[in-house]
Amino acid sequence: MKKVEHIGIAVNSLETAGDIYQKLLNTGIYKVEEVASEGVKTAFLKCGPNKIELLEATNPDSPIAKFIAKKGEGIHHIAFDVDDIVAEMARLRAEGFILLNDEPKRGADNKLVCFVHPKSAGGVLVELCQEATPGD
Amino acid sequence: MKKVEHIGIAVNSLETAGDIYQKLLNTGIYKVEEVASEGVKTAFLKCGPNKIELLEATNPDSPIAKFIAKKGEGIHHIAFDVDDIVAEMARLRAEGFILLNDEPKRGADNKLVCFVHPKSAGGVLVELCQEATPGD
Repeated sequence: MKKVEHIGIAVNSLETAGDIYQKLLNTGIYKVEEVASEGVKTAFLKCGPNKIELLEATNPDSPIAKFIAKKGEGIHHIAFDVDDIVAEMARLRAEGFILLNDEPKRGADNKLVCFVHPKSAGGVLVELCQEATPGD
Repeated sequence: MKKVEHIGIAVNSLETAGDIYQKLLNTGIYKVEEVASEGVKTAFLKCGPNKIELLEATNPDSPIAKFIAKKGEGIHHIAFDVDDIVAEMARLRAEGFILLNDEPKRGADNKLVCFVHPKSAGGVLVELCQEATPGD
C-alpha cells in the first residue's frame, strides 16, 4: 500500500457537494466521470498526493443511493494505491480478508480496482487501486 | 490543504482493529497515545505520506463511544495537513464553514488541530492539523 489514493464521499448532489469541497480544499474539480456499471457519477479534487472522490448515485439501485438511505451523506470508502493489484489481492486473501471481486475491475479515473468487504476490515469499505495501462 | 494527514477510524478495540490494519497495510503500529481530554486512545499506522489513526473510546461519554453507538465501527474523520492552521481557520470561517473550536487545540501525534462541523462539510467531520512546534 503506497498511499491513500483517494477518499470516496457519498453525496446527494455533485453540484452542492462540489461547491463545498472546492471551498474546503481551495481547489477546483479536475475531473467529472460517470461509471455506469456502478450507478455513480463522480467528481475528483486533488489534495497534494491524495484525491477526494465525490460520488452521486445515478439510479435508486446504486450502492451510493443505498448507502445514503442507510447512513446519510458521508465517507463511503478509502482507496489505497498499490503497484500490483493482483499480488496485493493474493496477499490480502491469504491474510483472511474477504474480497468483493475475484479479478480486478475497471473503476473511475483510469484505475483497476478491487474492494475489500467492510466486515473483514473493521467496518471500513476498502478499495485497492492500481493505475491502468493501455493493455489492461 | 497540503495532503490528507490521516484518516481517523472509530473502533471497539485497538487490539483487534490494530491486528486487522497491520495486516491490511502490511506495516506495524508506530505510536499508541492516549488523549485524555478527548476520551480516546489512539494507534497510528503509516501508509506512504498518509496515516491511519485508530480511535478507541476510554469512557462511555467519549465522542468515539457515541459515534460507534450511533453508526457502528467505521471512518470517523478526515484530517488535512495545513501549514498555518490559524490562517486556514480564518479562510474557512470566511467561506461559511462552522468550526468546532475558536482556537487551535492540542491533538494526538504532536499536532495543533481544529475540527469543522460535519453539517457545514457535507456530512463529513473534517480536521485541520498542523505540526506543533515547541513554542506552541
